Amino acid sequence: MEKEQEEKLHMYRHSMAHVLAKALTKLWPEIKLTIGPAIDNGFYYDVDLDHGITPEDFTKIEEKMNEIIKNNEDFVRMEVSKAEALEMFKGNEYKLELINELPENEVITVYKTGEDFVDLCRGPHVENTKFLRSFAFKIEKVNGAYWRGNEKNKMLQRVYCYGFLDKADLKQYVAMIEEALKRDHNKLGRELGIFTTVDYIGQGLPILLPKGARIVQLLQRFVEDEEQRRGWLLTKTPFMAKSDLYKISGHWDHYKDGMFVLGDEEKDKEVFALRPMTCPFQYQAYLNEARSYKDLPLRYNETSTLFRNEASGEMHGLIRVRQFTISEGHLMCTPEQLEDEFKGCLELAIYMLKTLGLYEDASYRFSQWDPNNREKYIGTQEQWDEAQGIMEKILTNLEVPYEIGIGEAAFYGPKLDIQIKNVWGKEDTLITIQIDQLLAEKFGMEYVDSDGKKKNPYIIHRTSIGCYERTLAYLIEKYAGAFPAWLAPTQVKILNIADAHLEYANQVKESLEKYGLRVELDDRNEKIGKKIREAQLSKTPYMLVIGDKEVEEGKVAVRHRKEGDKGAMLVQDFINLIVAEVASKEIK
Amino acid sequence: MEKEQEEKLHMYRHSMAHVLAKALTKLWPEIKLTIGPAIDNGFYYDVDLDHGITPEDFTKIEEKMNEIIKNNEDFVRMEVSKAEALEMFKGNEYKLELINELPENEVITVYKTGEDFVDLCRGPHVENTKFLRSFAFKIEKVNGAYWRGNEKNKMLQRVYCYGFLDKADLKQYVAMIEEALKRDHNKLGRELGIFTTVDYIGQGLPILLPKGARIVQLLQRFVEDEEQRRGWLLTKTPFMAKSDLYKISGHWDHYKDGMFVLGDEEKDKEVFALRPMTCPFQYQAYLNEARSYKDLPLRYNETSTLFRNEASGEMHGLIRVRQFTISEGHLMCTPEQLEDEFKGCLELAIYMLKTLGLYEDASYRFSQWDPNNREKYIGTQEQWDEAQGIMEKILTNLEVPYEIGIGEAAFYGPKLDIQIKNVWGKEDTLITIQIDQLLAEKFGMEYVDSDGKKKNPYIIHRTSIGCYERTLAYLIEKYAGAFPAWLAPTQVKILNIADAHLEYANQVKESLEKYGLRVELDDRNEKIGKKIREAQLSKTPYMLVIGDKEVEEGKVAVRHRKEGDKGAMLVQDFINLIVAEVASKEIK
Repeated sequence: MEKEQEEKLHMYRHSMAHVLAKALTKLWPEIKLTIGPAIDNGFYYDVDLDHGITPEDFTKIEEKMNEIIKNNEDFVRMEVSKAEALEMFKGNEYKLELINELPENEVITVYKTGEDFVDLCRGPHVENTKFLRSFAFKIEKVNGAYWRGNEKNKMLQRVYCYGFLDKADLKQYVAMIEEALKRDHNKLGRELGIFTTVDYIGQGLPILLPKGARIVQLLQRFVEDEEQRRGWLLTKTPFMAKSDLYKISGHWDHYKDGMFVLGDEEKDKEVFALRPMTCPFQYQAYLNEARSYKDLPLRYNETSTLFRNEASGEMHGLIRVRQFTISEGHLMCTPEQLEDEFKGCLELAIYMLKTLGLYEDASYRFSQWDPNNREKYIGTQEQWDEAQGIMEKILTNLEVPYEIGIGEAAFYGPKLDIQIKNVWGKEDTLITIQIDQLLAEKFGMEYVDSDGKKKNPYIIHRTSIGCYERTLAYLIEKYAGAFPAWLAPTQVKILNIADAHLEYANQVKESLEKYGLRVELDDRNEKIGKKIREAQLSKTPYMLVIGDKEVEEGKVAVRHRKEGDKGAMLVQDFINLIVAEVASKEIK
Repeated sequence: MEKEQEEKLHMYRHSMAHVLAKALTKLWPEIKLTIGPAIDNGFYYDVDLDHGITPEDFTKIEEKMNEIIKNNEDFVRMEVSKAEALEMFKGNEYKLELINELPENEVITVYKTGEDFVDLCRGPHVENTKFLRSFAFKIEKVNGAYWRGNEKNKMLQRVYCYGFLDKADLKQYVAMIEEALKRDHNKLGRELGIFTTVDYIGQGLPILLPKGARIVQLLQRFVEDEEQRRGWLLTKTPFMAKSDLYKISGHWDHYKDGMFVLGDEEKDKEVFALRPMTCPFQYQAYLNEARSYKDLPLRYNETSTLFRNEASGEMHGLIRVRQFTISEGHLMCTPEQLEDEFKGCLELAIYMLKTLGLYEDASYRFSQWDPNNREKYIGTQEQWDEAQGIMEKILTNLEVPYEIGIGEAAFYGPKLDIQIKNVWGKEDTLITIQIDQLLAEKFGMEYVDSDGKKKNPYIIHRTSIGCYERTLAYLIEKYAGAFPAWLAPTQVKILNIADAHLEYANQVKESLEKYGLRVELDDRNEKIGKKIREAQLSKTPYMLVIGDKEVEEGKVAVRHRKEGDKGAMLVQDFINLIVAEVASKEIK
């Protein structure tokens, strides 16, 4: 959206907040108004009112708002002194608190809407409510909200409204919200039995139920096998270490707030911390032997669990959690090998994204340091210029269409971050590839070069898919739970029409399981229509219906969740079909 | 060994310690003797001596000891007063310290050996050194040892001797030690590049290098697949939780000392702890839905990482560590299902042990509570009698040849522990199967029975192989690093005789890798004899030698690390051979 259009939308939304406030005051004259800003998808107003506003009140409020708009009421800006403002809002302790915080000689503005409503406000607003006639709005919900966001203050009611310049925009937005709600992994993932959370275990510590754990197991095997094929050597290193390690790596100085620390440095002989990154652990594999340039590149990967002490407000479903598992890799190479190896890492990441069907949704961020905030980083200006210069050259050669993110680098080097948005439009990093020329020296990692001299290798830090929890979240949202057959926790549901078909149904199940397929048999005494509907709702890729005809002919009647009826086929033909679909990781 | 024989051996060893002390005094008259007890495999003496005793001195010392034995010297017991003892040992501050600690009126005994040596000692001893003539001994080593084990005291020299009643026993023991040294996972595992440890990471936190990580990956897939086949549902639950969880489970009261706690209950709003067991996490999968008797048994498994705050002295290689990964399972069932399900768990464990070749080495311990130590357990006498009664009945029906371990139960129920000894004879638990009728109630786990009533299920806690680190340790020791082909990190080494064979060698490598085989090509410019020797030392199952003849005939010359030369065969024939060996998990 252009800036002008954006400002207009913001002004309209803000004006609508006043209309909302006036409507609420008309309906409940005892109401105390507090603040009411424009937000990304509309506006809200926080009010102190004994009557609890419920969805039953929404139509009444919307009608009152429309009435005000139809009245063609003027918005009139007035300047008042602090004393006048205090007099004007006496009896409303919230407004008084805001006014009292203003400097003594401040010119205070208030806006009138019609003759009978006034609100403290900086503006600007539309001149008259008639301009709001084509504005489209809809009350979304009422939530509790503490006055000024402080839990020691009174809990107010926050009335949220969607608000857009016209009906088409509102309709589109509401449709997007409805679609997002259907796909939101934090809702759908729980409904499908993929994960849950439990208060007494804690926030940001999701529990993967059998369906979620199976998907992660399949993803993990896929990633480990693909990485093995591409020459990565698997390690398995501990999830914690003494503070000594983090002092060498720089995490203790630059990342301690994000870490879970065990013990107290002032009291205990040994202090441990859970690892937030795998780097200094995996370096030990390199350090275990003397290395020559002939050994390089050395590529280490690990299915690694990390821990980050996220703040309560930051955590979200499977996307932002306190413990997560990730395929982390560290690659040591010579300067000459750097570009090719970086390219190899990027190709691997793109292969993963394409296989999972997420490639089209990804964007690229070249995350650089912030030279105005040097205490966040190790290394000199020259070293950063060099590392960022190398990365820029590589990204240009590879024609990666990146945006720049200042201050988004790791403390030890620049990053290429592959970003994905969730159904609500919030962007997070899924995959990262980083160039580091600083940590090898700190850990004494060396190789003897062809000239006989000892040198520090370059290190590429990289992930190949994002952390499994976050990837699972995006997959749930992408496929609305209807996972590709190779990832589906249950691939086939067998539905027998009557008890007479049970023996054959069990034989079919066994035949399929011999091929490693994940099969469930719904042998309940229910009508076949109901069984099919429920199997469809569970988003299982294939349903096999079995009745007299199938038993007689040694066949199964195949239904696909999207493609519908595919006709009857011999059991072995169906096995061939699904085994090929699984092997190719086809998305359908 | 019978008790009488044991006492005799102890007396002989103790007498030999005096002979050693006398020999050392003859060789270095300025020596200060301290203490010298009998130990499990011989005896030692701690001495204060400026001359550092080295292996070059051992023969000289042993000769002097033999000389004393041949002298037929009497051991003479003498009683002295404290004052006399102090006079007798003046100049030796160690003996004086020991004497001064004795009560004033204590009758102190000293032993003379011949006319010219006396030592403070309670005895008893042989009457004359002639009885020691057939005693077999051998100086093992000299270590540093602080006086009285306190690091603030002076560092002494501890001279260790193996000592046995005759030469055959000594020979057998030394052979055993040599074999154990060859197999000791803590030595061999490091030499083979399977794992390492690093001071600044910490004790009990081993780093699995690529070979070790590969074996654990293979084991994990084997276990997860086998459990899936047997109806276990995989979960993936967090490694930490708020203290609230452990307060419900009882871990906070009964296991807190063994746990890593994050935060301070007096200061922090939330205190977390790393999990020492998976139980209360995995229960959440059960609790996620309402359950009926028709859903039972429900079997949950997880490749679970656990953390235990072991004391420094307790940790050992991969066997006793602070962080480990284990296939933990919890099975919920009705009372009627309990015996069959227990049997299923035992059969699974035995299947695993047999596949790994560890079955013959296992013994069984029925671990019961200690009724004299009730504060260690939850539940009543009646509940324990019932649970142990049920387990006894099951073990008897299954004809499990168990020993009883009083006080070895979990705090919530009795266990069947499957025990294994390491190469040094130290026994640890590898696998455990436990019956628990207490925790379901604590967590509100219920099912609606066929009579419509809500009931708590029985829970079986079980592992199927031991923790992967410990299992890996026993496998290293069992196979002295020569793992069965299915587990070998590298299964095939291809050795080309000359550069001319390199292209063909690479083709063979690719052909094998298409079958998922793990292959290395040794393409160095070295003599083929040297390449074979080194491949043999690396304990790789198969070597494929490639020269002119092989290239011409499209064959490979196959050598097995144990079976030696197996002749030339077509590449596809070799592939068929090794793929079958891997698929059957054959041990050879």
